Amino acid sequence: MLQVFEAMESEVRGYSRMFPAVFDRAEGSELFDVDGRRYLDFFAGAGALNYGHNDPAMRAALVAYIQHNGVVHSLDMATAAKGEFLQRFHDVVLEPRGLEYKVQFPGPTGTNSVEAALKLARKITGRHTIVSFTNAFHGMTLGALSITGNSFKRHGAGVPLTHSVVMPYCNYFEDELDSLAYLDTMVADDGSGVDKPAAIILETVQAEGGINVASEQWLRGLAALARGHEILIIVDDIQAGCGRTGPFFSFERAGIEPDLVCLSKSLSGYGLPLSVLLIKPELDVWEPGEHNGTFRGHNLAFVSATAALSYWKDDTLPRETARKGELVRSVLDAVVEDHPQLQGEVRGLGLINGIACPTPGIAAQVVREAFSRQLIIETAGPDDNVVKVMPPLVIDAEQLSEGLQIVRDSVRAVVDTMPHNTFAAMEATI
Amino acid sequence: MLQVFEAMESEVRGYSRMFPAVFDRAEGSELFDVDGRRYLDFFAGAGALNYGHNDPAMRAALVAYIQHNGVVHSLDMATAAKGEFLQRFHDVVLEPRGLEYKVQFPGPTGTNSVEAALKLARKITGRHTIVSFTNAFHGMTLGALSITGNSFKRHGAGVPLTHSVVMPYCNYFEDELDSLAYLDTMVADDGSGVDKPAAIILETVQAEGGINVASEQWLRGLAALARGHEILIIVDDIQAGCGRTGPFFSFERAGIEPDLVCLSKSLSGYGLPLSVLLIKPELDVWEPGEHNGTFRGHNLAFVSATAALSYWKDDTLPRETARKGELVRSVLDAVVEDHPQLQGEVRGLGLINGIACPTPGIAAQVVREAFSRQLIIETAGPDDNVVKVMPPLVIDAEQLSEGLQIVRDSVRAVVDTMPHNTFAAMEATI
Amino acid sequence: MLQVFEAMESEVRGYSRMFPAVFDRAEGSELFDVDGRRYLDFFAGAGALNYGHNDPAMRAALVAYIQHNGVVHSLDMATAAKGEFLQRFHDVVLEPRGLEYKVQFPGPTGTNSVEAALKLARKITGRHTIVSFTNAFHGMTLGALSITGNSFKRHGAGVPLTHSVVMPYCNYFEDELDSLAYLDTMVADDGSGVDKPAAIILETVQAEGGINVASEQWLRGLAALARGHEILIIVDDIQAGCGRTGPFFSFERAGIEPDLVCLSKSLSGYGLPLSVLLIKPELDVWEPGEHNGTFRGHNLAFVSATAALSYWKDDTLPRETARKGELVRSVLDAVVEDHPQLQGEVRGLGLINGIACPTPGIAAQVVREAFSRQLIIETAGPDDNVVKVMPPLVIDAEQLSEGLQIVRDSVRAVVDTMPHNTFAAMEATI
Amino acid sequence: MLQVFEAMESEVRGYSRMFPAVFDRAEGSELFDVDGRRYLDFFAGAGALNYGHNDPAMRAALVAYIQHNGVVHSLDMATAAKGEFLQRFHDVVLEPRGLEYKVQFPGPTGTNSVEAALKLARKITGRHTIVSFTNAFHGMTLGALSITGNSFKRHGAGVPLTHSVVMPYCNYFEDELDSLAYLDTMVADDGSGVDKPAAIILETVQAEGGINVASEQWLRGLAALARGHEILIIVDDIQAGCGRTGPFFSFERAGIEPDLVCLSKSLSGYGLPLSVLLIKPELDVWEPGEHNGTFRGHNLAFVSATAALSYWKDDTLPRETARKGELVRSVLDAVVEDHPQLQGEVRGLGLINGIACPTPGIAAQVVREAFSRQLIIETAGPDDNVVKVMPPLVIDAEQLSEGLQIVRDSVRAVVDTMPHNTFAAMEATI
Repeated sequence: MLQVFEAMESEVRGYSRMFPAVFDRAEGSELFDVDGRRYLDFFAGAGALNYGHNDPAMRAALVAYIQHNGVVHSLDMATAAKGEFLQRFHDVVLEPRGLEYKVQFPGPTGTNSVEAALKLARKITGRHTIVSFTNAFHGMTLGALSITGNSFKRHGAGVPLTHSVVMPYCNYFEDELDSLAYLDTMVADDGSGVDKPAAIILETVQAEGGINVASEQWLRGLAALARGHEILIIVDDIQAGCGRTGPFFSFERAGIEPDLVCLSKSLSGYGLPLSVLLIKPELDVWEPGEHNGTFRGHNLAFVSATAALSYWKDDTLPRETARKGELVRSVLDAVVEDHPQLQGEVRGLGLINGIACPTPGIAAQVVREAFSRQLIIETAGPDDNVVKVMPPLVIDAEQLSEGLQIVRDSVRAVVDTMPHNTFAAMEATI
Repeated sequence: MLQVFEAMESEVRGYSRMFPAVFDRAEGSELFDVDGRRYLDFFAGAGALNYGHNDPAMRAALVAYIQHNGVVHSLDMATAAKGEFLQRFHDVVLEPRGLEYKVQFPGPTGTNSVEAALKLARKITGRHTIVSFTNAFHGMTLGALSITGNSFKRHGAGVPLTHSVVMPYCNYFEDELDSLAYLDTMVADDGSGVDKPAAIILETVQAEGGINVASEQWLRGLAALARGHEILIIVDDIQAGCGRTGPFFSFERAGIEPDLVCLSKSLSGYGLPLSVLLIKPELDVWEPGEHNGTFRGHNLAFVSATAALSYWKDDTLPRETARKGELVRSVLDAVVEDHPQLQGEVRGLGLINGIACPTPGIAAQVVREAFSRQLIIETAGPDDNVVKVMPPLVIDAEQLSEGLQIVRDSVRAVVDTMPHNTFAAMEATI
Repeated sequence: MLQVFEAMESEVRGYSRMFPAVFDRAEGSELFDVDGRRYLDFFAGAGALNYGHNDPAMRAALVAYIQHNGVVHSLDMATAAKGEFLQRFHDVVLEPRGLEYKVQFPGPTGTNSVEAALKLARKITGRHTIVSFTNAFHGMTLGALSITGNSFKRHGAGVPLTHSVVMPYCNYFEDELDSLAYLDTMVADDGSGVDKPAAIILETVQAEGGINVASEQWLRGLAALARGHEILIIVDDIQAGCGRTGPFFSFERAGIEPDLVCLSKSLSGYGLPLSVLLIKPELDVWEPGEHNGTFRGHNLAFVSATAALSYWKDDTLPRETARKGELVRSVLDAVVEDHPQLQGEVRGLGLINGIACPTPGIAAQVVREAFSRQLIIETAGPDDNVVKVMPPLVIDAEQLSEGLQIVRDSVRAVVDTMPHNTFAAMEATI
Repeated sequence: MLQVFEAMESEVRGYSRMFPAVFDRAEGSELFDVDGRRYLDFFAGAGALNYGHNDPAMRAALVAYIQHNGVVHSLDMATAAKGEFLQRFHDVVLEPRGLEYKVQFPGPTGTNSVEAALKLARKITGRHTIVSFTNAFHGMTLGALSITGNSFKRHGAGVPLTHSVVMPYCNYFEDELDSLAYLDTMVADDGSGVDKPAAIILETVQAEGGINVASEQWLRGLAALARGHEILIIVDDIQAGCGRTGPFFSFERAGIEPDLVCLSKSLSGYGLPLSVLLIKPELDVWEPGEHNGTFRGHNLAFVSATAALSYWKDDTLPRETARKGELVRSVLDAVVEDHPQLQGEVRGLGLINGIACPTPGIAAQVVREAFSRQLIIETAGPDDNVVKVMPPLVIDAEQLSEGLQIVRDSVRAVVDTMPHNTFAAMEATI
């Protein structure tokens, strides 16, 4: 049945090449293809399935809403479903954290939220430049692409990408450079050639960029620096938010309060398109209708998102995420230790973790080996050199062990089958 | 219950101000608010609800898929639901029309599709400039915004919008200008200052721009002109496609075959976010993964979209749309005739129609009057001067009559309550 | 001696290919090469030598100044030479015409002046877009290039040219289009997609663009339109100013007063680099030093420019220019009439005139024929299809007759030696 | 007589405010105002007067040429004067240094040359981005401004400046950062977000930027880095070239050969506008006429430039420059030592030297004090915090001593008259 995809779907398709199966059903951390073959999911929809596939409570809410003939499409009209989501989001997420934000529904995808954030930051400040970071990933539309690091994606724009300045992310240069001091000087110096920016946009953990975790100190320093220069801080929490790093927002660990926050991916809980831009109340200077979009009011997503927020009524989920994350990293540490030829480096926080492998092509081979063992896992990083381990947050203990064992086996298989001198040669050249 | 929206939702919200109710349920052409009040829908989700709200066959398919635990979120992996959609789209839409297109899923919103089209056109040609038209509307992300006409929306970008050239749409200048000859000269002349464009993007009927219908002759001339200069033609059929003008594609009436076609809005049938970019096979030069996005694989939308294509197995729907469209225009003609003070002009094709009212503010008053009579209807045009009449295609005869009567009554109410000399003054100044 | 140029000078050189001689001396309307061969000059330094070569009074002033050890280079310090120029410019040019302008010395070339004008217009209005016209030519630096029409020159930028919108010049479309109504609508309509411009820049007679003369009515209409929309008017009078069309400023015939005026080329009188930007006093919002440049204070040019203004103490020169212009056009009319195969069209005003020849390559052949007869003359127009006849304003009657006779002979030679069927073929395809 | 400047000249004028006199005559290192007051010149036309004012040999050549009726204005036609300049430049500058360059005359100002270099680099490579450095100064036209560091000048553009990336110059960050490693990583990393540049443009000594001298090692490293990534190197030698640092080209000390070199300022020798772009022969890919300009052929400047090259027939001038430079720096060192409150830092190379003074406003006060003592000297640096000492290279020993004594006296006067606690306060806050 893959033929219809080859015949009909654009060459741009990617994951269907990496995972050549036709998927049919899914539950929790498991996927099943049309032949009934079972796959374990350490991919989690690239962060859109933190609560696993087809969570029963959300499923029940969706079916009930559909059978009730609940309004499905509503642009930005008021609906009962949206009202409940807003109220629940306030009660469960914002209020307990002492956060105040207005909520914009800028269209249902992450890149809609990023584009809205850039527009609003420019409107608020009257400035053009956005500071972004090395290895950042923010989306594929023209504004979001201009602040994305990956050169292959950037090249796809077909026009020069402008109005952005890239700065080194935390630890991009290991010891030699204090990236905050660098940014501070470039922004403050009237002779630097860097125009005063409207905003600094960042992921607190870069996912696509190779699982790079910014330190809490760096995040606090950045927030202070931005405040000092009256530059807005935008946190793109599309992949790292909704509990992926443990707490609901990935920036909670640093105790900072961004001016604007982009959420999407796991926000709907069920994998349905939904995105919000959170705006500090005093910065909500939009005119009515100044940004719009057809699918701002995706009510099925409001329904599942409201149900998903039940996970946040107490601290069970973040504690579990922290515990599972430690387990994952301990296994990955062991893998790296067992295979010194891999020259692997374990990275991560909460349940976004990975092994960076400097030898080109190794990470992709591990992913292929894993798929042959029915584990779905992908690579990250500008050169696809990081094996990215990202199960649903709700994965149970057995599935987690099973998947980690497959990761171990897959790495071993790749290391074993490669000629010994490949590594020797690599070591010599590095 | 509107308080939660005022307290929590960004000032950017628009329709909830125009239609101050909290909607709960919907069926076909009817909406119900939380107090059970019924509203007739002549708005159809701005074109996203051509098949009405909560079509029973689609609803059943959705519930069955959800209860089956069908995969909901799949990025661009192959799924059974996507395969069925592709096959059905081929069998019901492309093959019978002798069209060959590859299908890209660029993200679930129209603007994702437009951004992908611009990127691909620039990649194919190696050129930067996109020609768009006066009063065009293509979306809110930075690339799409650069080819959108509305100055209020454009201003929201916060940066200058570049790499686009605007040309007069069909009949933008009434008699005085042959807009195709103008475009041809500007593109062909080495001294014109217009860089050779990668593509020309157009809506065959401009919806947001004020319900402007391009003539078939103009569309054919434009296609010939583009071919002659080796410029790509992109049809943005996001609002006018999926049967809104009668046939599935709005360009069928002109017998042209665009190089790229953007579809969204009613594509999923059920108001769920879904978008495709159709690409002539020889132009499908994407590299795998060169454009991506989290919600490219929205399987609930594939399921409802597949069900929606059942409407296209024969020509009942387009014939009905044509018939209803004639009825709508005959009523609107009568309205205009009955109220010469309105100086109204009826515009439209199929079931996208409207009355342009030159007096500022009149169209908005008609909309308010209609809402007070429980009819949902909106304005279009750069100055909101067009009353836009756009019921679901599947509306039944009684509902259509009922709604048109409300339009009549609303216009009459506006005309009657305005001081007579307002119109006199207007006439004097125009 | 041409070898040193071939060996050492960049391939970018152009005129030395068209006029393959090494020039040594010059007087009035005559040039002499190193072998003493005499050439008549109907080119006048592309407008920089309106007063001919090496005018004796200016020569004497220059020699005296140099021998006095007058300050030659002074950036924008005050010098006696600059003070005299400013006073003379005020007394002879501005005051008698009732014009009030502040004078900026933005660097000594025309493109410096254009760049300064664009910067100032954007600063004054806070807007980005500049409206320019089809076939405009304003210079080669990045800002000036973005408002230049010629695609070959534009392509040289190597980056997309932005922040400009091109509009049809007077009579660009013959009967079919009222270019002012077009511009008015595009600027006024909130849906047109044309961002409100900071300024409209124009040449009142397009020189490089093919000798296109804007009508007085059009110029007045344009000025009124700009005023109505609070858009600045910049006249680039670099080539058409300093008497080339008769009066000192080319816009005098229309009775308009531009907000900003760029002058260069013949301003120094002696072919020395000098440029000014004239600024309405209330628009002189520059901060000290906000625009600078090393050669703003070219005192030799001030000295010759002051001397050159002696030509403007009475109306002898403009009257002579008008008279000679009529003579030129009558001869060109006769040439066109004598050679119907040429399909020539005579264009021009004052002493900037030419024959447009639709057959590709013909104008260049005429120029080559003329050079073989020791007349220096060039082509204009985006496809080099206009024979441009532009002697010094001070040319004497005999030289003018002699040159015009060579033009006649050259056209005849080209027409005679071309196969008859070339024209037939041309006519068939046009 | 300053009134005419106030009444007539734009507010943009700067030096005439700093040096409020009306200058008349000049010889060597001396200027005289209209009242006969003598001023010593430690400014040298911001680098345009390396050979002093009105050098007798050049003066004689100019007068002879003018009296011979030599062609003055010639666009890019071949002239005897240009041929002689090219031959002399080859014989005296290029050949003895083993350099091969084609010569483009891009217009007579430095910014013309920079704009041409950017265009050519983009054409050669097909890339858009230009890397420039912190505190760079390259000119005021739009392309040159986009690679200039000074925020006040940049702001004057009125549009966002694009297609450039700024990197830290040598020692911009003192110990903490290896600026070459930083640049190398940002250019090489596919995830950095820095698009591969067409060229890197630099001054080997930044003049306007505050007299920052790049080390020879850094220059060699930069050249190697650029070669490794196939990025062009453009040296803007407009101010530091023509002997200002000692050798003719400022890059000779590092033994590098840039791909493109911009020269202007002192090139003509006499302060006349002249500029060249030197192009490695294999990179001379211009089409004829692809870049043009009215004053490319400024023959008076060719004549004086040819005469000026007589200074380069042996190594007297560079040896003298080195010797005088050491003297200047030893005096400046003493000044700094004598006045610890100044916290001064001596910078420079050859005869471009200065004292950086961290206390805001101090440098400007020194300049005013010096002017009151009839020494012309200016500030440099983004905050005007560097006293820039730049006499003509040909200054005689007595004048040099006299001027340096005035510098000493002026610094002392400033230090003495300032309240002591100002410095204390400064020290406390730094």
